Amino acid sequence: MREVSIVGAGMVKFGKYLDTSMKVLAREAVEGALRSAGIEAPRVEAAVVGNAMAGLVTGQECVRGQVVLRDMGIGGIPVVNCENACASSATAFHLAWLYVASGMYDVVLALGMEKLYHADKQRSFAAIGAAVDVELMQEMIAQMNAAQVGLRAKEAGRGEASAAGNGGAGQSRSLFMDLYAETARAHMRQYGTTKEQFARVAVKSHRNGSLNPYAQYQEVYTLEEILASPMIADPLTRLMCSPIGDGAAAAVLCASSLAGRFTAKPVRILASVLSSGADHEPEEPGLQQRVLTKAYEIAGLGPKDLDVIEVHDASAPAELIAYEELGLCPRGEGGRLVDEGATEITGRVPVNPSGGLLAKGHPVGATGIAQISEIFWQLRGEAGKRQVKDPKVGLTDNLGGMVRGEAAAMAVHVLGI
Amino acid sequence: MREVSIVGAGMVKFGKYLDTSMKVLAREAVEGALRSAGIEAPRVEAAVVGNAMAGLVTGQECVRGQVVLRDMGIGGIPVVNCENACASSATAFHLAWLYVASGMYDVVLALGMEKLYHADKQRSFAAIGAAVDVELMQEMIAQMNAAQVGLRAKEAGRGEASAAGNGGAGQSRSLFMDLYAETARAHMRQYGTTKEQFARVAVKSHRNGSLNPYAQYQEVYTLEEILASPMIADPLTRLMCSPIGDGAAAAVLCASSLAGRFTAKPVRILASVLSSGADHEPEEPGLQQRVLTKAYEIAGLGPKDLDVIEVHDASAPAELIAYEELGLCPRGEGGRLVDEGATEITGRVPVNPSGGLLAKGHPVGATGIAQISEIFWQLRGEAGKRQVKDPKVGLTDNLGGMVRGEAAAMAVHVLGI
Repeated sequence: MREVSIVGAGMVKFGKYLDTSMKVLAREAVEGALRSAGIEAPRVEAAVVGNAMAGLVTGQECVRGQVVLRDMGIGGIPVVNCENACASSATAFHLAWLYVASGMYDVVLALGMEKLYHADKQRSFAAIGAAVDVELMQEMIAQMNAAQVGLRAKEAGRGEASAAGNGGAGQSRSLFMDLYAETARAHMRQYGTTKEQFARVAVKSHRNGSLNPYAQYQEVYTLEEILASPMIADPLTRLMCSPIGDGAAAAVLCASSLAGRFTAKPVRILASVLSSGADHEPEEPGLQQRVLTKAYEIAGLGPKDLDVIEVHDASAPAELIAYEELGLCPRGEGGRLVDEGATEITGRVPVNPSGGLLAKGHPVGATGIAQISEIFWQLRGEAGKRQVKDPKVGLTDNLGGMVRGEAAAMAVHVLGI
Repeated sequence: MREVSIVGAGMVKFGKYLDTSMKVLAREAVEGALRSAGIEAPRVEAAVVGNAMAGLVTGQECVRGQVVLRDMGIGGIPVVNCENACASSATAFHLAWLYVASGMYDVVLALGMEKLYHADKQRSFAAIGAAVDVELMQEMIAQMNAAQVGLRAKEAGRGEASAAGNGGAGQSRSLFMDLYAETARAHMRQYGTTKEQFARVAVKSHRNGSLNPYAQYQEVYTLEEILASPMIADPLTRLMCSPIGDGAAAAVLCASSLAGRFTAKPVRILASVLSSGADHEPEEPGLQQRVLTKAYEIAGLGPKDLDVIEVHDASAPAELIAYEELGLCPRGEGGRLVDEGATEITGRVPVNPSGGLLAKGHPVGATGIAQISEIFWQLRGEAGKRQVKDPKVGLTDNLGGMVRGEAAAMAVHVLGI
């Protein structure tokens, strides 16, 4: 297989676009990616489009990619629509990489897009609830109801999916933030990690987001403000949870041997690894370990070589724990890394300079390529006020869904310049 | 890229499975495919799963493949969920082929699955309505309503999506059978094709279906019975329209260089071509011409070399017109081919020996791999009572969705033994 590079990236500012269609969001991202690659649309030989939830939010299933691409005049090429919950667009990027790496096509577009906001909030919750085994979840809810466990209902914008009913079947429940909270509490018990350490991750994310014109939230918060925001699921306050959002992000991939025709600064894809969860014993490596180990192996490098990272911080504790999964520090020492400021933009290994899912936002199917776009810009020195100093190697880590106790999908990309 | 072969195929009898979950249908298809390949599940290195409409029918979006695969103990491998309306599983098969052809994996599973039947029929209709540009369709319906054009509502099982409301948004309309009828009428006007010729296609399909234990409908009908069945959209009677159905089909793909380890009769993939519709002038080749020309070119053969074919007969006229697109006869002479019986199982170029979408059934996301499975069995001489005599080369043609006047996806596979 041949080496593949990214020659262009584009995204729309993440946010709440109730009256803007997916076509408009996707067009802005795709046009940005093509423009930055200096490539006209007819040069694109295939497109892979990641979206997780349009079927349930807008009713547009089946041909999501064709609908937005034909609207911008792109057609007559292979269009693959793929989904993998929150890892949908990293999966799309992986397939676009595969098309080029195989030698089948030279120039391929990867697009991730999502509109989660809907006038009827129950639609958004139903969509998020579909990232698990809906049938099992319904059985579980039925058992919980039978045991008289009442379901909380919250009004807030962040983390609210944690307590929302699943309108898809009208009776299920999305428990992602509850799961993240449980994982956070276990980390606190086992390693003595504190709420303040989790909150410090959120302080960093929001500070970074304030420097990112693409971020959905660009406000700076103090540690006290993070801790004092409404509790979603202890220890997670609202500002430690990723928000609901709309957005799109796109990238143009090209054989490395041809990349010089389009840009003087192609970003090489050193590893593209996708996998899914599995049944395993507690002492066996989990999904994250398996995928990261393989990514390091393929790229021929290790955690010490990483200069900039975008991780899947659906909640602040998820970022802290990702430090350990990535091998940036020994198991249990994620909190110490936070205290040292090692993962700040100016630290020794900056993580989520974009503001991450917490501040940049998390329009599910757009997130993976948005992470990759950020690393693309960072490696090219184009990240403006949030620029990390002279990075050579970056990594993105995108997780999706939950089936039988483990994430349903994980896609990791190692990029270099 | 290296050559890829199919070493196993399996499917569940298509039908109405209101009380059977997708997991059960998928398991039967996957276990059948693995068994026929003599491969244990842990030998599978990646899986690509095609499904079009579960998000809208069952509420299960995002991680459809992981949900059914983990249930049968398959995990820890890349799982890609893809959709392309009625071409969803041929797209899944194409991606599985790409994984192997690229050299990335040796053994990959492709699975297509669909449950269209739902206790609430409006759910099924809403799902089918999502295979077009839902936003444009809603605008069109609004205009039609404003012009006081009443919408018909039919009760029957076949072709009823033609007149059904789109429950996804509660106001749209799936017009597929109306579109097929309009195409049929144009063919009649231009070439003098008759209703009886279309009906004869349906007679053949139902006769073939009666020989296929996997077919949803296994009854034989006379020409008169086909013509006398309720009119869906002139000239399409109900028995000329593909039915709603549930089902699953799976295939195991393997590098041809390794296929001999698993079976003495691997079926080689001579071409795997996917594309999408485009804006074009009437005199320029459309999607079908583009894809078929490319498939013939890659496989290094032409229509005269085909011994058995499965085409996308969502309606009987679609099969007759496909004869011409395929180059089995000159443009306008599809009717003559029917009259000659050339496409019967015993004819010179048998088409849809399985019974096709009309009789075997059309559980959208399962159809593409079911077509491929049929050709796999035909080429291996394992097609029982519907066996074509000694075929060496076969072709499958799978179309999906409709966006801006052309099908949204088409996937063609040329297979040889």
